[in-house]
Parts: sequence; C-alpha cells; structure tokens
Amino acid sequence: MNLMKSLIPAAAIVALPQMGLAQEAAATGEAAQHTQYIFTTLLFLMAGFLVFFMAAGFAMLEGGLVRSKNVAMQMIKNVALFSFAAIMYWLIGFNLMYPGDGWSITGWLGPFFSTTTLDAVGVAPADAALDYASVGSDFFFQLVFVAATASIVSGAVAERIKLWPFLIFVIVLTGIMYPISGSWKWGGGWLDAKGFSDFAGSTIVHSVGGWAALAGALILGPRIGKYKDDKVHPMPGSNLALATLGTFILWLGWFGFNGGSQLAMGTVGDVSDVSRIFANTNMAAASGSVAALILTQVLYRKPDLTMVLNGALAGLVSITAEPLAPTLFGALWIGAVGGIIVVFAVPMLDKFKIDDVVGAIPVHLFCGIWGTIAVIFYGDASLGSQLLGIVAYGVFTFVGALILWTILKSTVGIRVSEEDEINGLDMAELGMEAYPEFSKG
Amino acid sequence: MNLMKSLIPAAAIVALPQMGLAQEAAATGEAAQHTQYIFTTLLFLMAGFLVFFMAAGFAMLEGGLVRSKNVAMQMIKNVALFSFAAIMYWLIGFNLMYPGDGWSITGWLGPFFSTTTLDAVGVAPADAALDYASVGSDFFFQLVFVAATASIVSGAVAERIKLWPFLIFVIVLTGIMYPISGSWKWGGGWLDAKGFSDFAGSTIVHSVGGWAALAGALILGPRIGKYKDDKVHPMPGSNLALATLGTFILWLGWFGFNGGSQLAMGTVGDVSDVSRIFANTNMAAASGSVAALILTQVLYRKPDLTMVLNGALAGLVSITAEPLAPTLFGALWIGAVGGIIVVFAVPMLDKFKIDDVVGAIPVHLFCGIWGTIAVIFYGDASLGSQLLGIVAYGVFTFVGALILWTILKSTVGIRVSEEDEINGLDMAELGMEAYPEFSKG
Amino acid sequence: MNLMKSLIPAAAIVALPQMGLAQEAAATGEAAQHTQYIFTTLLFLMAGFLVFFMAAGFAMLEGGLVRSKNVAMQMIKNVALFSFAAIMYWLIGFNLMYPGDGWSITGWLGPFFSTTTLDAVGVAPADAALDYASVGSDFFFQLVFVAATASIVSGAVAERIKLWPFLIFVIVLTGIMYPISGSWKWGGGWLDAKGFSDFAGSTIVHSVGGWAALAGALILGPRIGKYKDDKVHPMPGSNLALATLGTFILWLGWFGFNGGSQLAMGTVGDVSDVSRIFANTNMAAASGSVAALILTQVLYRKPDLTMVLNGALAGLVSITAEPLAPTLFGALWIGAVGGIIVVFAVPMLDKFKIDDVVGAIPVHLFCGIWGTIAVIFYGDASLGSQLLGIVAYGVFTFVGALILWTILKSTVGIRVSEEDEINGLDMAELGMEAYPEFSKG
Repeated sequence: MNLMKSLIPAAAIVALPQMGLAQEAAATGEAAQHTQYIFTTLLFLMAGFLVFFMAAGFAMLEGGLVRSKNVAMQMIKNVALFSFAAIMYWLIGFNLMYPGDGWSITGWLGPFFSTTTLDAVGVAPADAALDYASVGSDFFFQLVFVAATASIVSGAVAERIKLWPFLIFVIVLTGIMYPISGSWKWGGGWLDAKGFSDFAGSTIVHSVGGWAALAGALILGPRIGKYKDDKVHPMPGSNLALATLGTFILWLGWFGFNGGSQLAMGTVGDVSDVSRIFANTNMAAASGSVAALILTQVLYRKPDLTMVLNGALAGLVSITAEPLAPTLFGALWIGAVGGIIVVFAVPMLDKFKIDDVVGAIPVHLFCGIWGTIAVIFYGDASLGSQLLGIVAYGVFTFVGALILWTILKSTVGIRVSEEDEINGLDMAELGMEAYPEFSKG
Repeated sequence: MNLMKSLIPAAAIVALPQMGLAQEAAATGEAAQHTQYIFTTLLFLMAGFLVFFMAAGFAMLEGGLVRSKNVAMQMIKNVALFSFAAIMYWLIGFNLMYPGDGWSITGWLGPFFSTTTLDAVGVAPADAALDYASVGSDFFFQLVFVAATASIVSGAVAERIKLWPFLIFVIVLTGIMYPISGSWKWGGGWLDAKGFSDFAGSTIVHSVGGWAALAGALILGPRIGKYKDDKVHPMPGSNLALATLGTFILWLGWFGFNGGSQLAMGTVGDVSDVSRIFANTNMAAASGSVAALILTQVLYRKPDLTMVLNGALAGLVSITAEPLAPTLFGALWIGAVGGIIVVFAVPMLDKFKIDDVVGAIPVHLFCGIWGTIAVIFYGDASLGSQLLGIVAYGVFTFVGALILWTILKSTVGIRVSEEDEINGLDMAELGMEAYPEFSKG
Repeated sequence: MNLMKSLIPAAAIVALPQMGLAQEAAATGEAAQHTQYIFTTLLFLMAGFLVFFMAAGFAMLEGGLVRSKNVAMQMIKNVALFSFAAIMYWLIGFNLMYPGDGWSITGWLGPFFSTTTLDAVGVAPADAALDYASVGSDFFFQLVFVAATASIVSGAVAERIKLWPFLIFVIVLTGIMYPISGSWKWGGGWLDAKGFSDFAGSTIVHSVGGWAALAGALILGPRIGKYKDDKVHPMPGSNLALATLGTFILWLGWFGFNGGSQLAMGTVGDVSDVSRIFANTNMAAASGSVAALILTQVLYRKPDLTMVLNGALAGLVSITAEPLAPTLFGALWIGAVGGIIVVFAVPMLDKFKIDDVVGAIPVHLFCGIWGTIAVIFYGDASLGSQLLGIVAYGVFTFVGALILWTILKSTVGIRVSEEDEINGLDMAELGMEAYPEFSKG
C-alpha cells in the first residue's frame, strides 16, 4: 500500500464519519511510518552515491602518488576492484554479513552463496521493512563500503604487484573475509554482544583494509631501490594535483560514509544526529590536516603536501568509529591525533622497510586502531571491548591475508619481474601508458 | 497554501471540535500529498545535479582520450555545448518535447518557440502540480539529459572538427531534433502509444547521441594518418588518469540518470524502486567493466584500460532502457553483454574506417540498441515495439544529422585544415595549449 | 520526542476514543512540523556537501591556472585554508556571525570566542529548532561558505605569496572579518534593517573574497616579469583540463550554494523555490560562458578557454545575489552581463598592473557587485540600499585587508624571494614538485 492509498480511508471518513477515530489514527500513523521509511531509504541512496564516489577518490589519490609509469595499472586496478567487489558482495557477501534468519553458525558465520534479492518492483508497504529502509538502498550502501576496504589495499601494494593475483585477493577479501568479520559486529554477531563499538568502521572497514594491505606489503617486499644501501630513497608521486583531488573526493565521500551509518533519518533526533556527524567528520579532517601541516613544518622546516593530504584522511579515519558522540572539540583533538600519528608512522614503516606506496597503512590501520580506542572518551564502550575488537579483526584479517597472499605467491606469483618493475607496470602488464606524450624527468 | 498553513484547520479543531472529522481528514490527506510533492521534487533536484556532473565526466573522459594538442579544444567544446544546450532547451526544447496542452500536431510535434516558464516564487499548492513535482526541478532534470546527448557527439568527432560548426550542430540537436524525437515517447506521443519502452533513455538519449555521432564521423572522415596504408594506427589518449576520472564521474551521474527517471519518490513503492535502480545500475556497470577486462585479457593477452572504462559505460548504457525490472543477476548479464559488444565493436568500426576517437558509437549507439532490446527479457514490452522505436529514432536522427552535417560541410565547412589538424586544434582554433609546459613525446 | 513517539497518542486514540480530536490534531500538526524540520535539515546537509566540494573546485581551477612549478603550493594552500576556516568558524566565526541571544553590540558585532555547540545526540523535538533545522546542519552549511571566501583570495595572490602569512590572513578573514560583516545582513544586523538584499552572497561572500584578494594583489605586487617593459606577458596555466574540471565542480557546488540559501525545503512553496534557484543558477552559468565565448571570438578572433571558464563563474556570481526572483530570461541576461564584464575586466586589471593570477577579482568582485545591483530588476530592493551594502562591505573588507596585509608584510613578510619565485614555490617552500616527471617546456 502506498502513501496515498493509505490515506484514502482517512479521506473516506469525510463521507463516513461514524468510521471514526480508529481508522483516522491508524492512517496518520501509517503515513508517518512511510515518510520515515522514505527518509531513511533516501539517506542510504544519498550516502551511497557519496561513498561510491570514494572509489574515484582512491583512484585519483593513488594514481597521483605512484610514478607515471604505473598510473594506468593503478587505474585499471581501482576500476576492476570496485567491479569485482560489487559482484562478489551480491553473490555472497551481503547475506553472509547480514544473515538475518539465515544465520547459520550462530554469531560467527552467515549462509554461503545466498545472493541478494531486492524488494519487488513497486513493493507494497506491507512487504517492505517499514521500520528501516528498502533492501536495494541498504545493499547499495553496504556494497560501497566493502569496495572502500579493497581500495585501501590497492594503494599499499602499488607499483610492483601483478594485476590478476591482486584481483583474486580482492575477490576473496570482499566476498568472504570482510563479510565474515563484518558480521561479528554489524551483522549482530558475537562482538556486538561483547559491547564492541564501531559506528562507521574505523576497525571494520579501515583497519581491515589496513591489515590486508600490511600483509600484502610484507609478502611482496619493497619496490626495487626503495631501501637500497640501507637508505630510504623517496619515489615522489607523479601528480600531486591528482592526489589532492582524490583527497577532496574522499573527504566528500566521508560525509556519506559516516552520515549514512546513522542508519536512520526519519525523526528529528536522527536527522540531527546525521548533522552532528557531518560537522564532526569535517572537523576531524580539518584538524588532521592542520596537525600534519604544523608538525611537518616543525620537524622538517617545510610542510609536506602528501602528509597534509594523509593528515586529512587520518583525521577522517580516526573519527569514523564514533563520529556522533564527540563534541566539535572532541572531533578536533581526535582528528589531530590521527594527523600526528601519520606523520610519525610513515617514516617508522620505512625503518622497518615496509614499503607502503601511498601511506595506506598509517592512515587506515594505525588511525583505524586509534579511532576505535578513542570511542571510550565520548562513546559508550569500554577499553576492554574495544581492544578485543581491534585484536579480533587484526588477527583474523592479518593471518587470513598472510595465508592468502602466500598461497597466491607460491602458485601464480604476485610480483612482476624486475625488468617489468623498472620499465613500469603500464607497459609490461597493459601495453599502454597513462601519459604517453609527457616525457619522463 | 503551504504545509504548515494546511494544518491550521486541523489544529483549530481543538477549539472547534464540532468542525469534526472532515477537515481533519482533508488536512491529513493534503499534508501527505505535499510531502510526496516535496520528495519527488527533491528526487529531480538530486538526480539533476548528479546528471549535470556528467558534463564534467564526458569532458574528462574525452579530454583524457584525445592527444594533448587537442585537449583545450575538447574542454571548450564540452563547456560550450552544455551552455548552448541549456539555453536552447529553455528557448524551444522543453515545451517542444513535453507539449502538454500546447500539443499541436498530435503525437508528432509540440509548439515551437514556447519558452519554459517556472512556477511562481513561493508557489501556492493549489497552483503546483501536486501529483508530480515543481516545474523548475522537472525542467532542470530534463535539461541535463539533453546535454548528455550532445556530449556523446563531442567525443566521436574530436581532434578534427571546427568549433563553431560543431556548436551549430549542437544547437539544432538540443533545441529541435532531440526534443521532437524525445516527445514521441516521453512527451506521450505516437511511440508511447505503440508500447515502446525506454525507461531512462538507452535509445532516446544514448542511441540518439550515437546516431548523430556516427553521421558526424562519416561526413568528417577519419583523422589524418589514422588508417594510413590500410593499417589502423592507434593514437593513444594523452591522459588515462583523467579518462578514468571521467568514467567514475559518469558512473556516479548515472545513479541520477536512471534513478531520477523513476519520476516519483513519495511512496514506499517509488523510493524502493529508485533503490532497485541504483543497485541494478551499479551492477551493470560493474559487470560491463569485468566483461571487457576478461575479454581483452583473453583476446589480446593484456587487459586494456580504455576498454575497461568503455566496458563500464557500456554496461551503464545497456541497463538504461530498463534499470528497474531486472533482478541483480539480470543487470549483471545485460551489462556484461554491453561490455562484450564494445570490445568487438571498436575494432569493427576501425575496419570500416569510421574514426570514433573515444568509442562513443560502440558505447552509446550499439549498447543503446542492445539495452533497448534487452527490455523484453524483464520489462513489459514486445520485441516488435522495441525494434520499431529503435528504427524510428535511428532513421530520424541519422538522416537528420547527415543532412545537417552535410549542409554545414558545404557552407561553413566542418573540418580544420590539414596543417591545423597536424599542429593541433588548440593552437589553431584557440591559440593556447592545455599543457604548455609538458613536452610532447 | 521523535516522530513515531509523537504518534503514539494518535494510535492510543483507538483504544480511548473519548480522548478525542484535540490530541489527534496536535499529533498531526507535530508530525508535519517534524517532517518540515527533516526536509530543511536535509537541504543544508545536501547543499553543504555540494558547497564543500567547491573547495576541490577552487583547488583544481587554481592549480590548473598556475604554472607547474607552483601547483603543489596551490594545493597545500587550498587544503589548509579550508581546514583553518573550519576550525576558526567553530572557534569564533559562527556565533560571531549569527549571535542570537548573545548579540552584544547591537547590530554590529556578536560575542567573541563563543564556540559552536551542536544539538545533543538524539535531540528531543522539544529542544530542536523545529521551525528551522538542526544546529549541526546549519553550522556545516555556513562553514563551507566562509571557506569559499578564503579560496577566492588564494587564486589572486598565487605564485608569489609565502604559505604561512597567507594562512594567517585566512585565519583572520574566516574567524573574524567575514563573520563580522556577514552578520550585518545574515545575522540580522544593521544592513538587514536597511533593506539590503543579498540572497546567497554575491557581496557577502564573493565581493568580500574579491576585496580581500584585491588588497592582497596590490600589496604583494605583480609576479616577476608579468609587466616587464610595460607589456603584459601572459603566463599560461599549466593544466587547462584541470581548470575545466575545477569550473565544473564549482558549477555543481553552486546548486548547493544558491539552492541551500533558500534556508527551507519543507513546504510546496519552498521546494519549488529551490527548484527555481537551480534552474536560474544553471542558466546564468550557461549564458555567462556563452557570452564570454562569443565576445572573445569577436574581439580576438579566437575563443579563449580560460575566459569561457571564468565566464561561467561570472554568470554564477552574478545570479547569486538573487537567484530566486528572476525568470529564466532574467537569469540569462544577468549571467551574460557577468560574462561580458569578465572579458573586459581581465585586460583592464592588467592595464593597472594588478596581477590577479586566475581572474578572481573580475569574477568575484566585479560580478559580485554587478549581481548585487541586478537585484533591483527582479528582487525586492532599492538601488540605494544595494549600493550602501556594496560600499559598506567594500570599505570594511578592503581597508581591513589592506591593514592586515600591510602588517603581515612589515612583520613576517608576505612575498617569497626573487630566486624562490623564479625557481617555483613548490621547491622553495615545500621541497617537492607537483609533476616531478613531466619536463618543463
């Protein structure tokens, strides 16, 4: 029954006053419920397209931070990973993560190979989840989250990985690993029962991507020449304008990422909460970039653009576990700590000779952990439950990813040949160049 | 009367209980109707700005796929075509396409030179189309569609066309040709009566753009050197990062393109349908790009980035004629077929020495036809009515465009001189370069 | 009390019919008020993220129009200015501009150092501004406006300013100057009482940015070599594709900028007004770019891409003071005049040897003035009150900015050394290059 139809009894009351208050009241309540359903569905659609656009943000950020000989490869990886993630999440992931009645191994694992079924065309209100939102909007919103996780990996392992092994990893990550672990909390599983709190996914999305990236960077090893003669040799990104654009797009998408995670917009309280989230999310990004700007100025005497960009992203990841509860001042200092973490973590990884091309591990893993801990200051969670969640996601994803990367390495191989790496992946793997007319410096 | 005012009688009832149920019920029904109007208007505004942004998507895609000496020209063409389309659609197009009461030659042609008039400022509900949406939102949403049609042409005829003849073509296409043929279906004309079905415009927007592009490519002839000595000489795009960005922007815009074409968002059924459309649209893009990725890997041993980008767009065009009815699996295979079509059609055009710089004809014309046929599998249309529509739009647009291009060629000329083409259109036509500091390879 | 709870009395009526019409009617009115609040809050969130994205638009536009040796600097300036603006507007600006009860020096100045406090989490309707929108959404929407003002300055003073003095200027501008003068009109201050009209900020945002930019350009002086030997030496932008992208992003963001300034979306009249604004805003941009295209063709025999881009922006600035009242034809000619102004103003500034790198002063200051005057043709304002406002904002901002720039110049210095300017700010100030692999022409 649609909204207009639901009001016909109310209108009919004009002719049949003796039908009385009961129908009238019922009609009013129904109309309000429909309106709430529309608002929440709209929130998912709007937040969903914003988060979708983060795929472009990751592609531009990473494409700007790799050298020009590897840009086309980075582009194809990012388009393909999103596409495979979309298919896998439909095929397995969504129902595995949100098992509903199909919940098979209680609290740990949902049903396998249960593809997503949308609401019927023109679904009747009686058949819709009136207290929530349409299946299609929910599926779309969750799908763009899983793609973000895969994008994080893409950046860290850039400039030396083969295309297809990377995509196989993405298929397993987005179809199986992320949905299983995501289910522990967001699917109402055992970590949810333990009181673990992660509003929009500092751990569930960002740390998970970061752990998978760390495992990949370790198994792959650093790029040729990066740590030659025990010195760190910087390999500057080829297009910092593109990287800046990517950062702004990610910042934009994050309003959907965090705002949509309110999961409701149909009441005064809910839409006001979405507003709080927007304001806090923006503040954390701002303070993260300012912190990185000031810190690099103080430490190196020159501010570092890539650090400022990563500082903004660090602030965003840090506020993601609890973007609602903090005050604006809370968001400011939580984001600023994120920016500081990144500035110290990037050279630290280099000390361990872990070659993370775009800084994905400091931003998404370290700040993901920090953000999850920071929940205790404003949110409703104990340090114990937060650490339990951090460790659980860490062990599961890192060990799982290590195993998967190792299997891939020992079967199909994951790294291009030395010659191909030196010549660039674009010519070697794709036979094309991203900027064929611009000579290399 | 605005929503709050409409409720005053209901509130007044407190003091005047004898006024009774009639006013109360009427007020409730009115409030619900207003809410529906606001939701649908909001859908048009939101979808409209997403589709607007496709203008940037086309510009970046095309700017990335042409050589650097023609990039500034491609930019000015895309900004100018949007601007002229906006003016022409106000001046003639909108009322010609959606004639309403002015419908003059029944079912074939609306009134000429009837400019668009918006709702009055602060329009009273009694004067608004309460069962639909505001005129301004509807006009804006339709306007950005016509601009997309013109953008398709822009890519195919790139790197050799003169600016002003191209813009004259755009003016006629967007002001007259597109609105007339669009009216046959969406204006409630004769093809609508014949049962032709095209939800968001696989034929009405994309094929029409494709036919106009094909006519242009034929009359213009190929770029110098493209088919020299009977071989195909690839002319690689100058900036594949930009082309990838453009593809992502188009993908984003398509949620508005298809989702907004539901034309309603005020009921549970409608907003759930918009959600289905989002999910299906995304799936078709994903499967189109995956199909192109796998197919180029198999055929050429190396995946082709531009094919993957065009594969995503092919999936999007393919699902556009019916993004609502298919299941997610339906969207998957319809999109995948689109991706396959593009991989085979691009070299086929080269065999016929039709030089389509960005692959616009395979993507928009061929997949537009495919998508229109695919409606029969899930939607409510016969193959006969679909073929009738495809042929009708094809004949009208292709013949019309051929005539127009021929007139332009024999009067003002449409092609730059050989010298100008070799030196690049940017210096020849605009006296500037897009990348003056980056040397040419 | 949320919407569902508010309906419980209505539902309860079924069991207790004697409670009667009073509660029922009250519940219906309350539900409608909540729905209005949600719509308006949603408008601010949606418009807010669109305007946020203008930060990326300014960055890309300016990054495309400077030479490649200064691109990284332009990027860091634009990310940092947004971040500082966000912090300052929370710390001082918002409450200074919209003083509410804290209004201290009546009509001239609000309270200092009163940080912004958001609505409580899950705010009860009784504690929310039900006749308006959530504090968070309002704050976010206003914050992205002030950032736009700062972005305008960034472009004009490019390629020669030091980073930190620029950021100090931004801090004072966004935290103090803009909020004080903005308060005169939008905070309900003395200019509002005088009948001054500026719907979305042709003067309050754009002219203010333009005046601050002009003061900066004057105090800084032109770039080395720009006016050597009394001739104007063009210094072409390094990436016109990027500049075009930036323009499209700004155009997109402007729908939020003007549309959101309706400040309400919960009634038929309001959402229809937002629609009018979208249509008019688009039309003015289109006519501004067409006017610049035709005029440069006529004057210089070759159309100028950067003029066309600035023409679109000129149209947008021109319609910003009154995007609601004009007809579409009104928007067309108001925007076209803006495009014409820019084409004449750019060389005029060069005659005065005022070096504005991106054309920010013609676009934002001159067209801001024009747009503010144009209100008298369709809107509800006298020429006198408009001129008063233009002069008041001009004197306050220009004098204030002159003083501030002069203080900065005579203390920390605002201009890089001659050597640094010639080598480029990227290496000198940041020690990095935006495009390290693309050789300079």
